[in-house]
Amino acid sequence: MKFTFVTLFKNLVDGYFSDSILSRAIEKDILTIEYINPRDYSNNKHCKVDDTAVGGGAGMVMNPQPLYDCLDDLKKQDENVHIIFLTPVAKSFTQNDAKRLAKKSHIAFVSGRYEGIDERVVEEYSDEVFSIGDYILTGGELPSLVMCDAISRNVNEVLGNSDSLSIESFESELLEAPSFSKPQKYRNNSVPKEYLKGNHSKIRSLKLALSECKTKFFRPDQLIKHKNQSY
Amino acid sequence: MKFTFVTLFKNLVDGYFSDSILSRAIEKDILTIEYINPRDYSNNKHCKVDDTAVGGGAGMVMNPQPLYDCLDDLKKQDENVHIIFLTPVAKSFTQNDAKRLAKKSHIAFVSGRYEGIDERVVEEYSDEVFSIGDYILTGGELPSLVMCDAISRNVNEVLGNSDSLSIESFESELLEAPSFSKPQKYRNNSVPKEYLKGNHSKIRSLKLALSECKTKFFRPDQLIKHKNQSY
Repeated sequence: MKFTFVTLFKNLVDGYFSDSILSRAIEKDILTIEYINPRDYSNNKHCKVDDTAVGGGAGMVMNPQPLYDCLDDLKKQDENVHIIFLTPVAKSFTQNDAKRLAKKSHIAFVSGRYEGIDERVVEEYSDEVFSIGDYILTGGELPSLVMCDAISRNVNEVLGNSDSLSIESFESELLEAPSFSKPQKYRNNSVPKEYLKGNHSKIRSLKLALSECKTKFFRPDQLIKHKNQSY
Repeated sequence: MKFTFVTLFKNLVDGYFSDSILSRAIEKDILTIEYINPRDYSNNKHCKVDDTAVGGGAGMVMNPQPLYDCLDDLKKQDENVHIIFLTPVAKSFTQNDAKRLAKKSHIAFVSGRYEGIDERVVEEYSDEVFSIGDYILTGGELPSLVMCDAISRNVNEVLGNSDSLSIESFESELLEAPSFSKPQKYRNNSVPKEYLKGNHSKIRSLKLALSECKTKFFRPDQLIKHKNQSY
């Protein structure tokens, strides 16, 4: 699977692929990462890519021309490329999107900086627009990486152990039960006794109860979704 | 303001501070970034930091000992450090949290990898736990960066133009109106005429109408919040 990052700041993105799970997937040719800088497409003699906002307002907006030309070129190279814009003015990205998008052959993430991207570009080129959460960031680079990471985990062979995918938070609306490792007792804090006794059906029901408890506390909205599905 | 990243994979984090807005804030000593690797605190002769999960289940869980010792050390160095764990089993991070946390002097983000962190560590050391969205990632490093970026924007002098903060998505429950830049017409796509006429009160009402329209389409939940606040 191929990911293209359309960004003015490759440096903010490429470090993330230098180690751990995604770097191994790149070494094994399961994932391919490519960068395109819209500045390289600017017709302006100073390679400018932004300008003041029409109609007033603080900050600079990314111009149409460099992005139109850059995205035309991208689509010419691969007509199947799925183009995603990252902006707070968008639908919320969820785990279901991560699984669905893992089936694409090529996804391009377009990152805005400054006060955003000229709306004409988004209307002309976006296959989808996503927000990763209800907060404001300095640009689209981190949201692109977040989506790339969440999608990649669902691409075959990226994770070593495919069992890891099935019992996680959001896979069933419930948040995951607490995990414990060795030793059984550390500085007076012990693992719950039921976890140690080896009765797997009892452990499963305790974990379900703990999951429901965590979900009720942190995310009552998710618990309601879960109950509606179960009954 | 100081941010400490407690992570096994500094490489996944530090590239993000190499360019653009946050790198300038670091150069000007407005922000300080520090890294701590729990592996450096491991008492295990092979510097192991994880083990299989007690009670069964796929994947490895981060052990208590290295994190206990590392976070004890961090608190000894600065008793005011505010320790945040990034995990999907947590409350959702929002723009209000970004503004509130921008007033802290020192925040530490603890990133889990593998199947997560032994729950005893979270119970013992967390001041808060956050999730950045309803999806699963390979580790806590991107969520730490997302929170650091969103918080930093609200620290004085990090953004050049402080006006940029006031009229953004989520600052008023409504998503932001579309932005346009030059030229007024590009490949047959024009900026909305009202934006060009210079009547700022008319532009303001058009932008509000467009904001409501975008919010209704992408985030009906936010529109309801907005209406409840307005009336």
